[in-house]
Amino acid sequence: MLKAAVLGATGMVGQIFVRLLEGHPWFETAVVAASERSRGLKYKEATRWRFPTPIPEKVADLEVVDPTPSAVKDVDIVFSALPAEVAGKIEEDFAKAGYTVLSNASSHRMDPDVPLLNPEVNGGHISLIDEQRRRRKWDGAIVTNPNCSTAIMTLSLKPIYDTFGIKRVIVSTMQALSGAGYPGVASLDIVDNVIPYISKEEEKMQTETLKILGEPSKPADFRVSASCHRVATLDGHMEAVFVEPKNEASPEDVAKAMNNFIGEPQKLKLPTAPAKPIVIKTEEDRPQVRLDRMEGGGMSVTVGRIRKDPALDGIKYIVLGHNTIRGAAGCSILNAEYLKAKKYL
Amino acid sequence: MLKAAVLGATGMVGQIFVRLLEGHPWFETAVVAASERSRGLKYKEATRWRFPTPIPEKVADLEVVDPTPSAVKDVDIVFSALPAEVAGKIEEDFAKAGYTVLSNASSHRMDPDVPLLNPEVNGGHISLIDEQRRRRKWDGAIVTNPNCSTAIMTLSLKPIYDTFGIKRVIVSTMQALSGAGYPGVASLDIVDNVIPYISKEEEKMQTETLKILGEPSKPADFRVSASCHRVATLDGHMEAVFVEPKNEASPEDVAKAMNNFIGEPQKLKLPTAPAKPIVIKTEEDRPQVRLDRMEGGGMSVTVGRIRKDPALDGIKYIVLGHNTIRGAAGCSILNAEYLKAKKYL
Amino acid sequence: MLKAAVLGATGMVGQIFVRLLEGHPWFETAVVAASERSRGLKYKEATRWRFPTPIPEKVADLEVVDPTPSAVKDVDIVFSALPAEVAGKIEEDFAKAGYTVLSNASSHRMDPDVPLLNPEVNGGHISLIDEQRRRRKWDGAIVTNPNCSTAIMTLSLKPIYDTFGIKRVIVSTMQALSGAGYPGVASLDIVDNVIPYISKEEEKMQTETLKILGEPSKPADFRVSASCHRVATLDGHMEAVFVEPKNEASPEDVAKAMNNFIGEPQKLKLPTAPAKPIVIKTEEDRPQVRLDRMEGGGMSVTVGRIRKDPALDGIKYIVLGHNTIRGAAGCSILNAEYLKAKKYL
Amino acid sequence: MLKAAVLGATGMVGQIFVRLLEGHPWFETAVVAASERSRGLKYKEATRWRFPTPIPEKVADLEVVDPTPSAVKDVDIVFSALPAEVAGKIEEDFAKAGYTVLSNASSHRMDPDVPLLNPEVNGGHISLIDEQRRRRKWDGAIVTNPNCSTAIMTLSLKPIYDTFGIKRVIVSTMQALSGAGYPGVASLDIVDNVIPYISKEEEKMQTETLKILGEPSKPADFRVSASCHRVATLDGHMEAVFVEPKNEASPEDVAKAMNNFIGEPQKLKLPTAPAKPIVIKTEEDRPQVRLDRMEGGGMSVTVGRIRKDPALDGIKYIVLGHNTIRGAAGCSILNAEYLKAKKYL
Repeated sequence: MLKAAVLGATGMVGQIFVRLLEGHPWFETAVVAASERSRGLKYKEATRWRFPTPIPEKVADLEVVDPTPSAVKDVDIVFSALPAEVAGKIEEDFAKAGYTVLSNASSHRMDPDVPLLNPEVNGGHISLIDEQRRRRKWDGAIVTNPNCSTAIMTLSLKPIYDTFGIKRVIVSTMQALSGAGYPGVASLDIVDNVIPYISKEEEKMQTETLKILGEPSKPADFRVSASCHRVATLDGHMEAVFVEPKNEASPEDVAKAMNNFIGEPQKLKLPTAPAKPIVIKTEEDRPQVRLDRMEGGGMSVTVGRIRKDPALDGIKYIVLGHNTIRGAAGCSILNAEYLKAKKYL
Repeated sequence: MLKAAVLGATGMVGQIFVRLLEGHPWFETAVVAASERSRGLKYKEATRWRFPTPIPEKVADLEVVDPTPSAVKDVDIVFSALPAEVAGKIEEDFAKAGYTVLSNASSHRMDPDVPLLNPEVNGGHISLIDEQRRRRKWDGAIVTNPNCSTAIMTLSLKPIYDTFGIKRVIVSTMQALSGAGYPGVASLDIVDNVIPYISKEEEKMQTETLKILGEPSKPADFRVSASCHRVATLDGHMEAVFVEPKNEASPEDVAKAMNNFIGEPQKLKLPTAPAKPIVIKTEEDRPQVRLDRMEGGGMSVTVGRIRKDPALDGIKYIVLGHNTIRGAAGCSILNAEYLKAKKYL
Repeated sequence: MLKAAVLGATGMVGQIFVRLLEGHPWFETAVVAASERSRGLKYKEATRWRFPTPIPEKVADLEVVDPTPSAVKDVDIVFSALPAEVAGKIEEDFAKAGYTVLSNASSHRMDPDVPLLNPEVNGGHISLIDEQRRRRKWDGAIVTNPNCSTAIMTLSLKPIYDTFGIKRVIVSTMQALSGAGYPGVASLDIVDNVIPYISKEEEKMQTETLKILGEPSKPADFRVSASCHRVATLDGHMEAVFVEPKNEASPEDVAKAMNNFIGEPQKLKLPTAPAKPIVIKTEEDRPQVRLDRMEGGGMSVTVGRIRKDPALDGIKYIVLGHNTIRGAAGCSILNAEYLKAKKYL
Repeated sequence: MLKAAVLGATGMVGQIFVRLLEGHPWFETAVVAASERSRGLKYKEATRWRFPTPIPEKVADLEVVDPTPSAVKDVDIVFSALPAEVAGKIEEDFAKAGYTVLSNASSHRMDPDVPLLNPEVNGGHISLIDEQRRRRKWDGAIVTNPNCSTAIMTLSLKPIYDTFGIKRVIVSTMQALSGAGYPGVASLDIVDNVIPYISKEEEKMQTETLKILGEPSKPADFRVSASCHRVATLDGHMEAVFVEPKNEASPEDVAKAMNNFIGEPQKLKLPTAPAKPIVIKTEEDRPQVRLDRMEGGGMSVTVGRIRKDPALDGIKYIVLGHNTIRGAAGCSILNAEYLKAKKYL
C-alpha cells in the first residue's frame, strides 16, 4: 500500500481525490495538505464536504498540514489539486525533494519535459519523465493530467486520429458547475442562464489537445478551435465536436473505431481503468449529462449522435465525460497507477 | 387598423402573438383560432397563459374558433402559430381564400415560391409572393419566418456575408425550453441536464440558412453544419458560431460590420423593428441568456466574444436571440409590417 | 425466491420497483404489466427508463402484459404502481384472484379494512388483513403504503407520538419533481419558480397521518394541517414540521427519541429496512435534499434543526425523505418483506 | 427634486435602489457610496450590474465615495443598503450629521425609538422619529424597513389582525437567491437542492412581525414561529402562512378583508405605492414565484389558496412578494415618500 498525500485536499478536486482513494487497492490518503487557513484543523473541520457519501473515516480526523515537503512526511506519492496560482512552485519543491507529483494543476502542463498524460491516449509520454529528471536534476517527477474538457475530448479523438488522421477539430462545450470549484459560480449567475466564457479554457483545449495527441516531443499537426460555455449542470461536461479527418471516415467507421478502442490501462487492468474508455450510445438523444456522466465510474466518456458533418466533409458527434473524475482526480489516479505499472513509481 | 386572426392562438407561440399584438399600432387580434378542443371556449378559458402580464383584455373574452377560412371571418391578415403537422394544409386553405398568412410553421418554409423572410436579411424575397400567386393561382399569400435558431443566426451572418463572403459555418446551439412549446420538455429531463438533440432542428438550420442568405430563387453557396442542444433556460437561444469567410476578416472588421448593420425595416421605421438588429457586447462574458435576451424588445440579437478562429482561418463568436420573439412571433409580425410597407398587404 | 409482478411497471414508480427489486434476496420481477399501449412490447421498448443505471437485464426483455389476473400468471406477489384512476378496481381483481397486492396507489388507502402500512410506524395494522379477508370474502389481500409526504412525516412523528403524545401538527412541504411522475411537471413551469399546489396532497397528509399513527381501527386523535409545494428538485421531499406535543418535549428530548427509534423491520433485519429509520443531522443547514435523500439507501429519513417552536409551545424541525423510495416503491417492498416475515405471504 | 445618496450602492440591494430611483418623480441618485474597495471608481466600473436594463446613465459615471458624512455631500436624503456588520455605526453618523437615513439593514430595526416601517401596515410608527431625536439628540433620523420575508408577511397579516385579531402565526418560507446578495449562494449548493437554513431569518420574522403589527412602543401580543428555506428561484419569496385568529374568520372573510385593504400610501397616492397592496389570486395554483412576483411593480404581495386550517381552527394561505423590491429597496423608497408626505423630510 502506497501512502499518498493530497495537496489542496479541502477544495472541490481535492475532495474527489479523497473520495476516489477510499478503498483504492494500491494507494491510501495518508496526508492532507491545504492552505494555511486550514492548518492544524482536522480534515473534517476544514472541509465543506460536498458529497452524499460521508468523508472517509480514516481521513476525517487527519490534521491538515501545509503543502510543503517539510510538513508532508512519510508519503510515497503526491497528488496535487492545488490552484494554478500556487501549484507551479510547490510542485517543483516536491519533485526536488524526490516525490512523484501527480498534478491536476495547469502550471506545468505545457512544459516540454512534463508528461501531460491521459493514459489511454498517450501513455508513451511518460518517457518525458527521464528527460525531466535529467534536465531538472531532480529525483522526483511532475506528471500532469489534462484540463477537464481536454481530457474528455482527446479520449474521443484518439481512435479517430489513429485510424483516419485529423486535419481540424472544432468544439463547443457545455460545462458543469463543479468545474469552477467551490463556491465557484454564483447561483444568481446561472439559474435560467448560460455563461459563454470560462477563463483560459479555450486556450487550454487548443494547446493541450495537440500536445496529448502528438509525440512526446512533437505536438500533433492539426488545428483546434474551441468555444466554452457554462451551463447549470452539477457535474459532467458535454462537448459538440466537429472533426475534419485526413482520410474519409463514415459515422459507422468512427463508431466502430471508438467502440473497439482500448488503451494500455485496460490491457494492464489498472484498478481505475474503465472496461471501455469510450461507450457509444445509440439512442438519438444521448449521451445526457445526468444519465451518462457516471459511466465507467466516471472514467469512461460516452459518445453519441455520430453523424456526417456537411461543413467539414467530416463527422460530428457529442461526447460527455465526468469533469472531476475523468477530467481531474480520476485521471490523476489512473496516471499514478500507470506509472506504478510502468515502474516509474 | 387591420384585423388579425391568430391561428394556434392558445399555444406557446400563439400566446406570444397575442401578447405582442397588444397595443400594436397597425394590427389588432380580432379572431383567435385553435384546435377543436378549444372550440367555443373563451380565449382565457382555453389558454394556460404563461406570462406575468395578464391576457390582453380585449382578447381574453374572444371565443375560440376553428382554424378554417369559414370560421375565421372579417380579418385582414392571418398569423399562423399552428403546429407543423397541420399547418401546411390549413395555411393553403387560407391563402386560397385570399388571405395573406404570416406563418411561423415549418411546412412551407422551403417551398421555392414561398418567402422565408427575416426582413433585415432578405426583404427582397417578398418578390416570391408574385410568383407564388401566379403558380398557385390564389389571391392570398403564404409568407414564412425562419426556424428560431436560424432567424437568430442569419441576422448575425448577414453583415459577414455581405462584407466578406462566407465559405463555411459551423454552429452549436444552447436552446431554451420555450422553443419546445408547452408543456414541452419534462422538468425531470432537464434539471441538472443537457439534451443534445432537438428533432429536425439541425436540418432546418442547415437548409433555411442558405435559402435566407441566397437570392430569391437561388440558395447561397456555402456550407453549414449545426449541432443543437437543449439547456435549462426559459427563453433565449445562444449559439456558438464558427465562420470561414471568403475574404480575410478580423474580429474588429466583423464587429464593425455587425455594429453598423441596419436593414430595410430600420429604414422604414417599422413599429416592431429594433433600432439595432445586432447589438455588440464587449464584456468578456456576454451575451448572457437572462441578461440580454430582451435586447431591442427581444427583436435584436446580441453578439459577443468575436475572436479569431484558429481552425477555420476565420472568426468565431456568440450570438443570442429571443427564440419566441425574434425567432418566432416577433419576426412574423415584423414580416407583416414589412409587407404592408411594401404594399403587399 | 418469490416471483413478483409489477403493475404499472413502465411509469416512474414502476421503474423504481424494477430497480429496487434487482438483486433483491427474496423477490424477483417476473412479470411486468402496464396499460394496453405497451402490450406486447418488450419492457425496454415500452419504457422511457429514467436512471443512470441500466434496466436490469432479466427485466429488459420481458414482454409487457395487461394488468389483469388472467394476463399476469405464475407470480407469488403483486406490486402495484398503477395510477389511482385505475388502481382501485384492478387491485381488487387481483385480491379476488388470491393475490397479495402491495399497492402504492391511493385508491384503497383509507378503506377501514386495508392496512396503510409504514412498517416501522404501524406494523401491527397488518391484522386488518384478516378482517379484510373476512369482510371481502377473498383469499388475497390489498396492503397499501402511504402517500410519499405522509410516509416521510409519519416516520419522524412516531417517536414523538409514542414518547410525548401529539396535539397538533402543521407541515409545509417542498416536494420533488419525481413525485408528479413522468413527464409530470413541465420544465417551463418550474425553472425559477415554485408551484404552491399539489392536487389532493394536503388532504392525503391530513387523513393518512391519523390512520397510520392510530390503532388499526381507530385513527389517532390529533389535528394535522398541511401546505404542499412543488420545487425544482429531482428527488427528495423536504418538510418543515411544527408539532405541539401533549407533554413537554425539549428539542434534546425529541432528538434523543428519534435517534433511539427503531421499528420491527429493524429487529427482523428485513433486507430493505435501513439500519436507522431516522438519521439526525446536527449541522445547522442540514438535511439538504441532494446530499441526504439517499440516506439508508433512500429508506431512512433525515431530520435536522430540531428547535423550540414559540407559537405552539412545542418543537419544529426539518425532515427529508426520498419520495420514490421510502415514499413509494421502497416502502411497498419493505411492506412485502414484513408480510413475509409475519407469515402473511 | 431631492438629492439622494445610496450607501452600499454596488451590492444587490444597492443596485435595486439605483434602478428604482431612475425616473423617480421626487428623488434622484446624486451620490453613490460603497466600501473603500470601490473608492474612486466610477459606479459602472465598481458594480457587477445584475439586471437586463442598463445602469441609469446619470449614475453610471458617478464616482463612488466612502459611506461617511464627510464624503457624501449635498444630499437631502440617505438610503442605506449597507451590510448589517457595518450599517449600525455608519447610519448613526449620518443621523448625527442631520441626515434622514432610510435603512434596509437590520442593525437598528429593533431599537425601541427607531421606526420599523412597512407603511401600509404601521405608518403611525413614524412618531418614533420625534422620540428618537429627543433621546439621541440628533437632527437626523434613522428609519428602517423590515426584513424581506417579514415585510411580505406583515402586509398580508395586517387586514387579518385589524379585522379578526391574531393569536398565533406559523410561517414556512421558500426564499429566493437574491435574498442572499451577490455572489451569495453557490450554484453547487442550490441546483437540485433546498437549503433549510437562512442565518437569523427566523429570529427576524419572529420579532419584527410583532413590532410592526404593534403600537409604536408596544409590540403586538401574539405568537410567531418561522421556518426559513432557500430554494432555486431568482427573486420572490413565497411563504406558507398558518394563522389562528382571535375571532372566527372564514376564508371568504379573510379574502374580502385582504382584497379591500388599502393603506395610507394608497390614499396619499405616493409614487411607489401599488394600487392594491394585496392582490388576491383565485386560481388553485397561484401565486407562483415567476409569474406573480412583479405584481404592482414588485410592491404588491399576492395571496392565494386561502383555506381553512384544521390544526389551528384558523386559516392558511400562500403569500408571495418581491424580496428586493417590497422586501428591501422598494419599501425603503416608499418609506421616504411617506416621510415626505408627512413632512418628516
